Amino acid sequence: MPAPSDPGPGSRRPGGRTARTRAAVRDAVLTGLAEHGYPGLTVEFVAERSGVHKTTLYRRWGGLEGLVADALDLAGEDGWTPPDTGTLAGDLRALAREVCDSFADPAAAAAPTAFVAAAFQSERAADALRAFYAERFGRCEAVVERAVERGEAPPGTDAGAVVRAVSAPLFLRLFVTREPVDAELADQAAAAALAAVHAGAFTGARR
Amino acid sequence: MPAPSDPGPGSRRPGGRTARTRAAVRDAVLTGLAEHGYPGLTVEFVAERSGVHKTTLYRRWGGLEGLVADALDLAGEDGWTPPDTGTLAGDLRALAREVCDSFADPAAAAAPTAFVAAAFQSERAADALRAFYAERFGRCEAVVERAVERGEAPPGTDAGAVVRAVSAPLFLRLFVTREPVDAELADQAAAAALAAVHAGAFTGARR
Repeated sequence: MPAPSDPGPGSRRPGGRTARTRAAVRDAVLTGLAEHGYPGLTVEFVAERSGVHKTTLYRRWGGLEGLVADALDLAGEDGWTPPDTGTLAGDLRALAREVCDSFADPAAAAAPTAFVAAAFQSERAADALRAFYAERFGRCEAVVERAVERGEAPPGTDAGAVVRAVSAPLFLRLFVTREPVDAELADQAAAAALAAVHAGAFTGARR
Repeated sequence: MPAPSDPGPGSRRPGGRTARTRAAVRDAVLTGLAEHGYPGLTVEFVAERSGVHKTTLYRRWGGLEGLVADALDLAGEDGWTPPDTGTLAGDLRALAREVCDSFADPAAAAAPTAFVAAAFQSERAADALRAFYAERFGRCEAVVERAVERGEAPPGTDAGAVVRAVSAPLFLRLFVTREPVDAELADQAAAAALAAVHAGAFTGARR
Protein backbone atom coordinates (compact mmCIF):
# COMPACT_ATOMS: atom_id res chain seq x y z
CA MET A 1 0.00 0.00 0.00
CA PRO A 2 1.69 3.24 -1.07
CA ALA A 3 1.83 6.13 1.37
CA PRO A 4 -0.39 9.14 0.65
CA SER A 5 2.37 11.16 -0.99
CA ASP A 6 2.86 8.72 -3.81
CA PRO A 7 1.13 10.05 -6.92
CA GLY A 8 1.26 6.56 -8.44
CA PRO A 9 1.14 5.56 -12.07
CA GLY A 10 -2.56 6.30 -12.60
CA SER A 11 -2.55 9.79 -11.20
CA ARG A 12 -1.73 11.77 -14.30
CA ARG A 13 -5.12 12.85 -15.45
CA PRO A 14 -5.86 14.49 -18.73
CA GLY A 15 -7.65 17.51 -17.18
CA GLY A 16 -7.25 21.08 -18.32
CA ARG A 17 -5.75 24.11 -16.68
CA THR A 18 -7.72 23.60 -13.47
CA ALA A 19 -6.45 20.06 -13.04
CA ARG A 20 -2.90 21.18 -13.78
CA THR A 21 -3.13 24.00 -11.26
CA ARG A 22 -4.49 21.62 -8.67
CA ALA A 23 -1.66 19.16 -9.31
CA ALA A 24 0.97 21.94 -9.12
CA VAL A 25 -0.49 23.13 -5.84
CA ARG A 26 -0.60 19.55 -4.54
CA ASP A 27 3.07 19.05 -5.46
CA ALA A 28 4.00 22.27 -3.66
CA VAL A 29 2.10 21.16 -0.56
CA LEU A 30 3.88 17.78 -0.59
CA THR A 31 7.27 19.45 -1.00
CA GLY A 32 6.49 21.88 1.81
CA LEU A 33 5.31 19.09 4.11
CA ALA A 34 8.41 17.04 3.33
CA GLU A 35 10.76 19.97 3.91
CA HIS A 36 9.13 21.73 6.84
CA GLY A 37 6.41 19.45 8.23
CA TYR A 38 2.90 20.70 8.88
CA PRO A 39 3.90 23.24 11.55
CA GLY A 40 6.35 24.89 9.13
CA LEU A 41 4.15 24.86 6.03
CA THR A 42 2.85 28.25 4.89
CA VAL A 43 0.53 29.46 2.16
CA GLU A 44 3.39 31.71 1.05
CA PHE A 45 5.59 28.66 0.42
CA VAL A 46 2.87 26.93 -1.60
CA ALA A 47 2.29 30.10 -3.65
CA GLU A 48 5.97 30.57 -4.42
CA ARG A 49 6.58 26.92 -5.21
CA SER A 50 3.47 26.36 -7.33
CA GLY A 51 3.46 29.72 -9.06
CA VAL A 52 -0.19 30.14 -8.10
CA HIS A 53 -1.02 33.49 -6.55
CA LYS A 54 -1.67 33.58 -2.81
CA THR A 55 -5.06 35.19 -3.22
CA THR A 56 -6.07 32.36 -5.58
CA LEU A 57 -4.94 29.79 -3.02
CA TYR A 58 -6.99 31.46 -0.28
CA ARG A 59 -10.01 31.85 -2.56
CA ARG A 60 -10.04 28.27 -3.82
CA TRP A 61 -8.63 26.33 -0.86
CA GLY A 62 -9.56 28.60 2.05
CA GLY A 63 -6.07 28.36 3.54
CA LEU A 64 -3.50 25.92 4.80
CA GLU A 65 -5.89 23.30 6.17
CA GLY A 66 -7.82 23.21 2.91
CA LEU A 67 -4.60 22.88 0.91
CA VAL A 68 -3.44 19.93 2.99
CA ALA A 69 -6.85 18.25 2.86
CA ASP A 70 -7.03 18.65 -0.92
CA ALA A 71 -3.51 17.26 -1.38
CA LEU A 72 -4.66 14.18 0.53
CA ASP A 73 -7.86 13.94 -1.52
CA LEU A 74 -5.80 14.07 -4.70
CA ALA A 75 -3.35 11.45 -3.37
CA GLY A 76 -6.34 9.15 -2.95
CA GLU A 77 -7.26 9.48 -6.62
CA ASP A 78 -4.40 7.34 -7.86
CA GLY A 79 -4.70 4.10 -9.79
CA TRP A 80 -3.18 1.89 -7.11
CA THR A 81 -4.56 -1.62 -6.80
CA PRO A 82 -3.65 -4.15 -4.12
CA PRO A 83 -1.27 -7.04 -4.88
CA ASP A 84 -2.69 -10.15 -6.54
CA THR A 85 -0.08 -12.88 -6.10
CA GLY A 86 -2.53 -15.76 -6.21
CA THR A 87 -2.43 -16.59 -2.50
CA LEU A 88 -3.58 -14.79 0.64
CA ALA A 89 -0.16 -15.36 2.22
CA GLY A 90 1.56 -13.71 -0.74
CA ASP A 91 -0.89 -10.82 -0.90
CA LEU A 92 -0.69 -10.01 2.82
CA ARG A 93 3.09 -10.15 2.71
CA ALA A 94 3.16 -7.86 -0.32
CA LEU A 95 0.81 -5.40 1.42
CA ALA A 96 2.99 -5.30 4.54
CA ARG A 97 6.15 -4.91 2.48
CA GLU A 98 4.61 -1.99 0.59
CA VAL A 99 3.91 -0.16 3.85
CA CYS A 100 7.46 -0.87 4.97
CA ASP A 101 9.00 0.26 1.66
CA SER A 102 6.93 3.47 1.65
CA PHE A 103 8.63 4.60 4.82
CA ALA A 104 12.10 3.09 4.32
CA ASP A 105 13.52 6.17 2.62
CA PRO A 106 13.36 9.18 4.99
CA ALA A 107 12.95 11.62 2.09
CA ALA A 108 10.03 9.66 0.62
CA ALA A 109 8.50 9.17 4.07
CA ALA A 110 8.57 12.83 5.03
CA ALA A 111 5.36 13.97 3.30
CA PRO A 112 3.15 11.02 4.33
CA THR A 113 4.48 11.30 7.88
CA ALA A 114 3.63 15.01 7.82
CA PHE A 115 0.04 14.12 6.82
CA VAL A 116 -0.27 11.88 9.87
CA ALA A 117 1.20 14.64 12.02
CA ALA A 118 -1.10 17.29 10.51
CA ALA A 119 -4.15 15.27 11.57
CA PHE A 120 -3.22 15.90 15.21
CA GLN A 121 -3.42 19.64 14.65
CA SER A 122 -6.15 20.11 12.08
CA GLU A 123 -9.61 18.58 12.17
CA ARG A 124 -9.85 19.03 8.40
CA ALA A 125 -6.60 17.18 7.86
CA ALA A 126 -7.85 14.44 10.21
CA ASP A 127 -11.06 14.11 8.19
CA ALA A 128 -9.09 13.93 4.93
CA LEU A 129 -6.71 11.33 6.40
CA ARG A 130 -9.64 9.25 7.66
CA ALA A 131 -11.23 9.35 4.20
CA PHE A 132 -7.92 8.54 2.51
CA TYR A 133 -7.31 5.44 4.63
CA ALA A 134 -10.94 4.29 4.54
CA GLU A 135 -10.81 4.31 0.75
CA ARG A 136 -7.30 2.83 0.60
CA PHE A 137 -8.05 -0.01 3.01
CA GLY A 138 -11.33 -0.50 1.15
CA ARG A 139 -9.34 -1.30 -2.00
CA CYS A 140 -7.15 -3.71 0.00
CA GLU A 141 -10.19 -5.73 1.06
CA ALA A 142 -10.22 -7.35 -2.41
CA VAL A 143 -7.26 -9.41 -1.24
CA VAL A 144 -9.35 -11.04 1.49
CA GLU A 145 -12.47 -11.33 -0.64
CA ARG A 146 -10.54 -13.26 -3.28
CA ALA A 147 -9.12 -15.52 -0.56
CA VAL A 148 -12.63 -16.29 0.69
CA GLU A 149 -13.66 -17.17 -2.89
CA ARG A 150 -10.63 -19.45 -3.23
CA GLY A 151 -11.47 -21.13 0.08
CA GLU A 152 -8.30 -19.79 1.73
CA ALA A 153 -10.22 -17.80 4.36
CA PRO A 154 -13.44 -18.60 6.22
CA PRO A 155 -16.64 -17.05 4.86
CA GLY A 156 -17.58 -13.97 6.88
CA THR A 157 -13.97 -12.94 7.46
CA ASP A 158 -13.84 -9.23 8.35
CA ALA A 159 -11.72 -8.07 5.40
CA GLY A 160 -11.28 -4.54 6.73
CA ALA A 161 -9.96 -5.83 10.04
CA VAL A 162 -7.52 -8.21 8.32
CA VAL A 163 -5.92 -5.60 6.07
CA ARG A 164 -5.63 -3.21 9.02
CA ALA A 165 -4.08 -5.96 11.18
CA VAL A 166 -1.35 -6.48 8.59
CA SER A 167 -0.34 -2.81 8.55
CA ALA A 168 -0.95 -2.00 12.22
CA PRO A 169 2.28 -3.37 13.74
CA LEU A 170 4.24 -1.31 11.21
CA PHE A 171 2.32 1.91 11.76
CA LEU A 172 2.56 1.41 15.55
CA ARG A 173 6.36 1.34 15.33
CA LEU A 174 6.61 4.17 12.80
CA PHE A 175 4.34 6.66 14.54
CA VAL A 176 3.88 5.65 18.18
CA THR A 177 6.72 3.58 19.60
CA ARG A 178 9.19 5.07 17.09
CA GLU A 179 11.01 1.80 16.44
CA PRO A 180 12.58 0.69 13.16
CA VAL A 181 10.57 -1.39 10.70
CA ASP A 182 11.99 -3.79 8.13
CA ALA A 183 10.97 -6.55 5.72
CA GLU A 184 11.31 -9.18 8.43
CA LEU A 185 8.86 -7.34 10.64
CA ALA A 186 6.51 -6.92 7.67
CA ASP A 187 6.62 -10.66 7.05
CA GLN A 188 5.94 -11.35 10.73
CA ALA A 189 2.91 -9.03 10.67
CA ALA A 190 1.61 -10.76 7.54
CA ALA A 191 2.18 -14.24 8.99
CA ALA A 192 0.38 -13.30 12.23
CA ALA A 193 -2.62 -11.90 10.36
CA LEU A 194 -2.74 -14.96 8.11
CA ALA A 195 -2.68 -17.34 11.09
CA ALA A 196 -5.47 -15.35 12.74
CA VAL A 197 -7.55 -15.52 9.54
CA HIS A 198 -7.10 -19.28 9.33
CA ALA A 199 -8.08 -19.66 13.00
CA GLY A 200 -11.28 -17.70 12.35
CA ALA A 201 -10.29 -14.83 14.66
CA PHE A 202 -11.75 -12.32 12.18
CA THR A 203 -15.13 -13.99 11.63
CA GLY A 204 -16.88 -12.64 14.73
CA ALA A 205 -20.09 -10.71 14.10
CA ARG A 206 -18.23 -7.45 14.68
CA ARG A 207 -20.25 -4.35 13.65
CA MET B 1 -1.73 -0.65 29.49
CA PRO B 2 -2.33 2.87 30.77
CA ALA B 3 -1.54 5.84 28.55
CA PRO B 4 1.49 7.96 29.43
CA SER B 5 -0.54 10.62 31.22
CA ASP B 6 -1.82 8.28 33.88
CA PRO B 7 0.23 8.77 37.05
CA GLY B 8 -1.02 5.41 38.32
CA PRO B 9 -1.28 4.16 41.87
CA GLY B 10 2.44 3.68 42.43
CA SER B 11 3.52 7.11 41.26
CA ARG B 12 3.30 9.03 44.52
CA ARG B 13 6.86 8.95 45.71
CA PRO B 14 8.10 10.10 49.05
CA GLY B 15 10.75 12.49 47.65
CA GLY B 16 11.51 15.92 49.00
CA ARG B 17 11.06 19.38 47.58
CA THR B 18 12.82 18.52 44.33
CA ALA B 19 10.52 15.57 43.69
CA ARG B 20 7.47 17.70 44.54
CA THR B 21 8.62 20.46 42.19
CA ARG B 22 9.19 17.94 39.43
CA ALA B 23 5.72 16.45 39.96
CA ALA B 24 4.10 19.91 39.97
CA VAL B 25 5.89 20.79 36.74
CA ARG B 26 4.89 17.45 35.23
CA ASP B 27 1.24 18.05 36.16
CA ALA B 28 1.37 21.50 34.57
CA VAL B 29 2.87 20.05 31.38
CA LEU B 30 0.12 17.40 31.22
CA THR B 31 -2.59 20.01 31.77
CA GLY B 32 -1.06 22.24 29.11
CA LEU B 33 -0.79 19.37 26.62
CA ALA B 34 -4.39 18.35 27.32
CA GLU B 35 -5.70 21.89 26.93
CA HIS B 36 -3.56 23.23 24.11
CA GLY B 37 -1.69 20.31 22.56
CA TYR B 38 2.04 20.44 21.94
CA PRO B 39 1.91 23.32 19.43
CA GLY B 40 0.06 25.49 21.97
CA LEU B 41 2.11 24.60 25.05
CA THR B 42 4.40 27.35 26.38
CA VAL B 43 6.97 27.59 29.16
CA GLU B 44 4.93 30.55 30.44
CA PHE B 45 1.89 28.31 30.90
CA VAL B 46 3.91 25.69 32.78
CA ALA B 47 5.44 28.39 35.01
CA GLU B 48 2.09 29.94 35.85
CA ARG B 49 0.37 26.62 36.42
CA SER B 50 3.11 24.99 38.48
CA GLY B 51 4.15 28.08 40.42
CA VAL B 52 7.76 27.39 39.44
CA HIS B 53 9.62 30.40 38.08
CA LYS B 54 10.28 30.51 34.35
CA THR B 55 14.03 30.96 34.82
CA THR B 56 14.08 27.81 36.99
CA LEU B 57 12.22 25.89 34.29
CA TYR B 58 14.70 27.00 31.63
CA ARG B 59 17.68 26.30 33.91
CA ARG B 60 16.58 22.81 34.94
CA TRP B 61 14.66 21.59 31.88
CA GLY B 62 16.28 23.64 29.12
CA GLY B 63 12.91 24.58 27.64
CA LEU B 64 9.73 23.13 26.28
CA GLU B 65 11.19 19.99 24.71
CA GLY B 66 12.97 19.12 27.95
CA LEU B 67 9.78 19.69 29.95
CA VAL B 68 7.77 17.37 27.70
CA ALA B 69 10.49 14.70 27.70
CA ASP B 70 10.75 14.80 31.49
CA ALA B 71 6.97 14.55 31.91
CA LEU B 72 7.13 11.39 29.80
CA ASP B 73 10.07 10.04 31.80
CA LEU B 74 8.13 10.62 35.00
CA ALA B 75 5.00 8.98 33.54
CA GLY B 76 7.11 5.89 32.96
CA GLU B 77 8.07 5.69 36.64
CA ASP B 78 4.66 4.48 37.77
CA GLY B 79 3.92 1.19 39.50
CA TRP B 80 1.82 -0.26 36.71
CA THR B 81 2.03 -4.01 36.16
CA PRO B 82 0.42 -5.96 33.34
CA PRO B 83 -2.75 -8.00 33.95
CA ASP B 84 -2.38 -11.49 35.40
CA THR B 85 -5.70 -13.24 34.83
CA GLY B 86 -4.27 -16.76 34.73
CA THR B 87 -4.59 -17.28 30.98
CA LEU B 88 -2.92 -15.75 27.96
CA ALA B 89 -6.33 -15.13 26.38
CA GLY B 90 -7.47 -13.21 29.45
CA ASP B 91 -4.25 -11.23 29.76
CA LEU B 92 -4.15 -10.18 26.09
CA ARG B 93 -7.80 -9.14 26.22
CA ALA B 94 -7.18 -7.13 29.39
CA LEU B 95 -4.17 -5.42 27.79
CA ALA B 96 -6.17 -4.47 24.70
CA ARG B 97 -9.08 -3.24 26.81
CA GLU B 98 -6.74 -1.05 28.85
CA VAL B 99 -5.47 0.67 25.71
CA CYS B 100 -9.04 1.15 24.58
CA ASP B 101 -10.19 2.50 27.96
CA SER B 102 -7.22 4.91 28.16
CA PHE B 103 -8.46 6.69 25.07
CA ALA B 104 -12.22 6.31 25.50
CA ASP B 105 -12.62 9.58 27.42
CA PRO B 106 -11.51 12.51 25.23
CA ALA B 107 -10.39 14.52 28.27
CA ALA B 108 -8.25 11.67 29.59
CA ALA B 109 -6.92 10.93 26.10
CA ALA B 110 -5.83 14.50 25.38
CA ALA B 111 -2.44 14.47 27.12
CA PRO B 112 -1.25 11.05 25.90
CA THR B 113 -2.40 11.94 22.40
CA ALA B 114 -0.43 15.19 22.66
CA PHE B 115 2.69 13.19 23.57
CA VAL B 116 2.32 11.14 20.40
CA ALA B 117 1.80 14.36 18.42
CA ALA B 118 4.79 16.05 20.07
CA ALA B 119 7.06 13.25 18.87
CA PHE B 120 6.41 14.36 15.27
CA GLN B 121 7.77 17.81 16.06
CA SER B 122 10.48 17.25 18.61
CA GLU B 123 13.31 14.73 18.40
CA ARG B 124 13.64 14.85 22.18
CA ALA B 125 9.96 14.07 22.65
CA ALA B 126 10.31 11.23 20.13
CA ASP B 127 13.25 9.79 22.09
CA ALA B 128 11.29 10.03 25.34
CA LEU B 129 8.23 8.41 23.76
CA ARG B 130 10.38 5.61 22.34
CA ALA B 131 11.90 4.99 25.79
CA PHE B 132 8.47 5.15 27.45
CA TYR B 133 6.95 2.52 25.16
CA ALA B 134 10.05 0.30 25.13
CA GLU B 135 9.90 0.13 28.93
CA ARG B 136 6.10 -0.19 29.00
CA PHE B 137 5.93 -2.98 26.44
CA GLY B 138 8.91 -4.57 28.23
CA ARG B 139 6.72 -4.90 31.33
CA CYS B 140 3.92 -6.38 29.23
CA GLU B 141 6.18 -9.18 28.01
CA ALA B 142 5.69 -10.93 31.38
CA VAL B 143 2.23 -11.89 30.11
CA VAL B 144 3.75 -13.92 27.27
CA GLU B 145 6.61 -15.31 29.36
CA ARG B 146 4.13 -16.69 31.90
CA ALA B 147 2.12 -18.22 29.04
CA VAL B 148 5.22 -19.98 27.72
CA GLU B 149 5.90 -21.35 31.23
CA ARG B 150 2.31 -22.60 31.46
CA GLY B 151 2.62 -24.25 28.06
CA GLU B 152 0.04 -21.89 26.53
CA ALA B 153 2.49 -20.44 24.01
CA PRO B 154 5.33 -22.09 22.06
CA PRO B 155 8.84 -21.68 23.47
CA GLY B 156 10.72 -18.95 21.65
CA THR B 157 7.60 -16.80 21.15
CA ASP B 158 8.65 -13.19 20.49
CA ALA B 159 6.96 -11.61 23.52
CA GLY B 160 7.64 -8.04 22.42
CA ALA B 161 6.03 -8.66 19.05
CA VAL B 162 2.95 -10.26 20.64
CA VAL B 163 2.22 -7.42 23.06
CA ARG B 164 2.71 -4.89 20.27
CA ALA B 165 0.41 -6.89 17.95
CA VAL B 166 -2.37 -6.69 20.54
CA SER B 167 -2.19 -2.90 20.80
CA ALA B 168 -1.32 -2.10 17.19
CA PRO B 169 -4.81 -2.30 15.62
CA LEU B 170 -6.06 0.12 18.29
CA PHE B 171 -3.22 2.62 17.92
CA LEU B 172 -3.57 2.44 14.12
CA ARG B 173 -7.20 3.53 14.36
CA LEU B 174 -6.58 6.15 17.07
CA PHE B 175 -3.64 7.91 15.46
CA VAL B 176 -3.48 7.04 11.75
CA THR B 177 -6.81 6.05 10.24
CA ARG B 178 -8.72 8.06 12.87
CA GLU B 179 -11.47 5.49 13.32
CA PRO B 180 -13.35 4.71 16.55
CA VAL B 181 -12.10 1.97 18.87
CA ASP B 182 -14.22 -0.02 21.29
CA ALA B 183 -14.13 -3.10 23.52
CA GLU B 184 -15.26 -5.32 20.65
CA LEU B 185 -12.32 -4.20 18.53
CA ALA B 186 -9.99 -4.72 21.51
CA ASP B 187 -11.27 -8.28 21.88
CA GLN B 188 -10.79 -8.91 18.16
CA ALA B 189 -7.19 -7.66 18.35
CA ALA B 190 -6.52 -9.89 21.36
CA ALA B 191 -8.12 -12.93 19.70
CA ALA B 192 -6.11 -12.40 16.51
CA ALA B 193 -2.82 -12.12 18.43
CA LEU B 194 -3.69 -15.20 20.49
CA ALA B 195 -4.45 -17.26 17.38
CA ALA B 196 -1.17 -16.14 15.82
CA VAL B 197 0.72 -17.13 18.98
CA HIS B 198 -0.89 -20.57 18.97
CA ALA B 199 -0.04 -21.02 15.29
CA GLY B 200 3.61 -20.20 16.02
CA ALA B 201 3.59 -17.03 13.90
CA PHE B 202 5.73 -15.25 16.51
CA THR B 203 8.42 -17.91 16.92
CA GLY B 204 10.54 -17.01 13.88
CA ALA B 205 14.17 -16.19 14.59
CA ARG B 206 13.42 -12.51 14.20
CA ARG B 207 16.33 -10.26 15.31
